[in-house]
Amino acid sequence: MKAVRAALELFATTGFKGTSIAKVAERTGLSQSGLLHHFPSKAELLSAVLEERDAEDGAFLTGKDGEAPLGWDAFDAIEALVARNSTRPHLVGLYVRLSAEAMEPSHPAHNWLKDRYTGMTAWLTDAVRIGKVRDEIQSDAPASVLVHNTIAVVDGLQQQWLLYPERVSMVKEFGAYTADLRSRWGPRREGDRHDGRVGR
Amino acid sequence: MKAVRAALELFATTGFKGTSIAKVAERTGLSQSGLLHHFPSKAELLSAVLEERDAEDGAFLTGKDGEAPLGWDAFDAIEALVARNSTRPHLVGLYVRLSAEAMEPSHPAHNWLKDRYTGMTAWLTDAVRIGKVRDEIQSDAPASVLVHNTIAVVDGLQQQWLLYPERVSMVKEFGAYTADLRSRWGPRREGDRHDGRVGR
Repeated sequence: MKAVRAALELFATTGFKGTSIAKVAERTGLSQSGLLHHFPSKAELLSAVLEERDAEDGAFLTGKDGEAPLGWDAFDAIEALVARNSTRPHLVGLYVRLSAEAMEPSHPAHNWLKDRYTGMTAWLTDAVRIGKVRDEIQSDAPASVLVHNTIAVVDGLQQQWLLYPERVSMVKEFGAYTADLRSRWGPRREGDRHDGRVGR
Repeated sequence: MKAVRAALELFATTGFKGTSIAKVAERTGLSQSGLLHHFPSKAELLSAVLEERDAEDGAFLTGKDGEAPLGWDAFDAIEALVARNSTRPHLVGLYVRLSAEAMEPSHPAHNWLKDRYTGMTAWLTDAVRIGKVRDEIQSDAPASVLVHNTIAVVDGLQQQWLLYPERVSMVKEFGAYTADLRSRWGPRREGDRHDGRVGR
């Protein structure tokens, strides 16, 4: 829907708080009362924007069988999402702006933000657990460290890339990060080189 | 100064845009005109807040000789700063909020934000270069990847920690990240264990 797209673009650049309903209406080509007929408040417009974004990402991350990938496949799936995000600066901008604003417990997207972290954390924790069962990941790999740092790298790179798109390549940096993870925590094999390059 | 401290706390929780001069004056116990006498605009108050924050961090990061640490010492210094930040949630909140708001080129802190990334990047790039000269870091270590990912982990962990202080330990996660970096890119030695734990 056109209003959701307009709201997304405005929230992404000037933030949720810095965007007025009037501005969204103007960009949509609707009167303010016409827009409010569909979305009674700015918070409902925000919900629609986040739902659209999450539905897209969710569909992208799950396989054809509708299951989320596990083991190292989960990290590959995030890498693919990072590559996709590299073509969608407006969505990355939306996420960076909103996730910082929504730190405040009274923000209408606060629960969305907490749910997003809880969901990512649960999925990746499961991915590491199953990776161990499958002998893809060493049994002593510290799951919570891998999970938190992986999410941190994704979030942190977005910020740098938005500021310096010509200097920071999210795909290259994240790819190197996961290659190092595999090298460090992939399966041990006889005859591995002494510098720790394993599992590639 | 009391007004700077009040502004810092308000910017950290409700953001720069969401904080009014009136609110800062109220918390400082000054009249609005009294506050404006010292700080003619909210942007000047923001500059004072950021200067105070950066001066503190800068003093903390440089050694007694006034020089910034290089080689792996630079990563140790960041680890110490992360530990210190773990006791200062209001400053971390300020940084997370402002750095997202200031993505917008018209924001009064936009240049501060760009300078902060440029400065961190230049320092860490130099740290890796000198680490190679000193044979602390392997000569083929990809400097820009190490630099961007290290900054990303620091930034990303702050966000998770603010949301889930009981679940995320910035010190533990960042410590594990740098330990893996050293393991992967520390000096090669004869007789290293095959899992790549070197340079610890």
